Amino acid sequence: MKLHILGCYAATPRTLSNPTSQVLDIKNHLFLIDCGEGTQVALRKHKIKFSRINHIFISHLHGDHFFGLPGLVATFQLLGREKELHIHGPKGIKEAITLLLKIGNSWTKYPLIFHELTSKESVPLYEDNKVEVTSIPLDHRIYTNGFLFQEKPQDRSLNVAAVSKYNIDKAYYAIIKQGKDYTLENGRLLSNAELTFDPPAPKSYAYCSDTAYDPSIIPLIKHADLLYHEATFLETEAELARKTKHSTAKEAATIAKEAKVSRLLLGHFSTRYKDSAMFEKEAQVVFPNVLLAQDGKEIDF
Amino acid sequence: MKLHILGCYAATPRTLSNPTSQVLDIKNHLFLIDCGEGTQVALRKHKIKFSRINHIFISHLHGDHFFGLPGLVATFQLLGREKELHIHGPKGIKEAITLLLKIGNSWTKYPLIFHELTSKESVPLYEDNKVEVTSIPLDHRIYTNGFLFQEKPQDRSLNVAAVSKYNIDKAYYAIIKQGKDYTLENGRLLSNAELTFDPPAPKSYAYCSDTAYDPSIIPLIKHADLLYHEATFLETEAELARKTKHSTAKEAATIAKEAKVSRLLLGHFSTRYKDSAMFEKEAQVVFPNVLLAQDGKEIDF
Repeated sequence: MKLHILGCYAATPRTLSNPTSQVLDIKNHLFLIDCGEGTQVALRKHKIKFSRINHIFISHLHGDHFFGLPGLVATFQLLGREKELHIHGPKGIKEAITLLLKIGNSWTKYPLIFHELTSKESVPLYEDNKVEVTSIPLDHRIYTNGFLFQEKPQDRSLNVAAVSKYNIDKAYYAIIKQGKDYTLENGRLLSNAELTFDPPAPKSYAYCSDTAYDPSIIPLIKHADLLYHEATFLETEAELARKTKHSTAKEAATIAKEAKVSRLLLGHFSTRYKDSAMFEKEAQVVFPNVLLAQDGKEIDF
Repeated sequence: MKLHILGCYAATPRTLSNPTSQVLDIKNHLFLIDCGEGTQVALRKHKIKFSRINHIFISHLHGDHFFGLPGLVATFQLLGREKELHIHGPKGIKEAITLLLKIGNSWTKYPLIFHELTSKESVPLYEDNKVEVTSIPLDHRIYTNGFLFQEKPQDRSLNVAAVSKYNIDKAYYAIIKQGKDYTLENGRLLSNAELTFDPPAPKSYAYCSDTAYDPSIIPLIKHADLLYHEATFLETEAELARKTKHSTAKEAATIAKEAKVSRLLLGHFSTRYKDSAMFEKEAQVVFPNVLLAQDGKEIDF
């Protein structure tokens, strides 16, 4: 899994950094997560293939998380896209994008499929044989969801030396990798543990932005390999965080600690702070394994 | 008058240049003309004071000319704007911007005033004692207007040596500058020509994008000091220009020549062309005084 940060600052514009957008490269999918203004240019800048994006997940309908979406939808049309594009986001997103296309008489020729969210519970959003995506209800000023991206458990890895030794026909490999035992012609039962190794543990990425401090998300993101949690403010602005339903770096770290995630990635920094290192310092008091989002950053995990 | 080019390319995104947006600095106004995605970042990059923009003119509702507007409107709110913001653009712009603010529960506290255009004739859009702005109906795939920005004629300049020589009381200066003659106490009539000089000629800027070749605009833009005319294509793609209702560089130059403008500024180049110098070359065969738009370019006139 690889995460590309396209933008990680809160709303007011900056010359050298974008509002929120990320691309998650997971099992040959490129999932676009939020789409602030300028996302399509950032995609081009970071040489991410537009055509490989088939699913876009929008957390909420504040401009710094989706005002880049109309332009991206229009650009897909200009680039001759024919494949379906799926947009997952809060109710209202379909009406907004549809109106913008209508007044420009710029309907897409490719199928544009909206999946509007209204549930206040965690719900499944996407699933295939390798990955699943579920929503993480968040607590912000308007209806907002985070997203949990999980690899599905893989088949067990074949112990090539063992299957060769017993001369097992290749036709049986698939069911052995699924965990089945194998009986030799002489009647001896070989346990699956003799023939396979544990597969790599499935990885998961939890994206939580924008949100107030909300411990109710902890069971949903437990043991995630990477947690992106917004940290708009530092503790010195805790009152402002409360009022605007954002989090401080310390609060994000508390969520990371309680959810026992492997790593915490902070972002959505308010432009009032000149030095994002202060966010790292504040969070590390509570949870040591902290990364700071930065435009163009890539994280392999 | 000074024109800042914030962006000048046609729709598909480029890493180093923006879709269409310009700022015209005229008689202490900053008028924003079109507002493609990324305009607010370009304003910041070129150190143009957001707060001085009170009127925005949108030519048409294709994304590359107005998808930066929602973000700019939201940013004005974040920056604590209190002054009115006037948006002049095609019918539909109010519904679109209003819906985007509504779904984000992000109403502006400052007055946002829409002036929706529907006329197919040239109509006045703005006027004060120093400038006037009128629409220029254009021929594009959807309803589109260009804009003519004109300085009003100034008062005549006082001939300081003459008024001193005749000991004319300062109280009369204002009416003399308005062109009145003056009678001395001895009954001698001084003609206004003896007391004043011609004021600087009022300047004008005509903005015409997007449009097919349309000679009907010539009377409206006659003798403009600067004409911005789109040149999406070269003559080698004349058929495509016809089909998409855009112009070639040669067609833009023909309009400039027939309208007897002083200078022609070309822009809205299709990203298919690697070298914009070809536009200059093609136009100069018809009209010699050609400039090429470029992000960040400033033109004084």
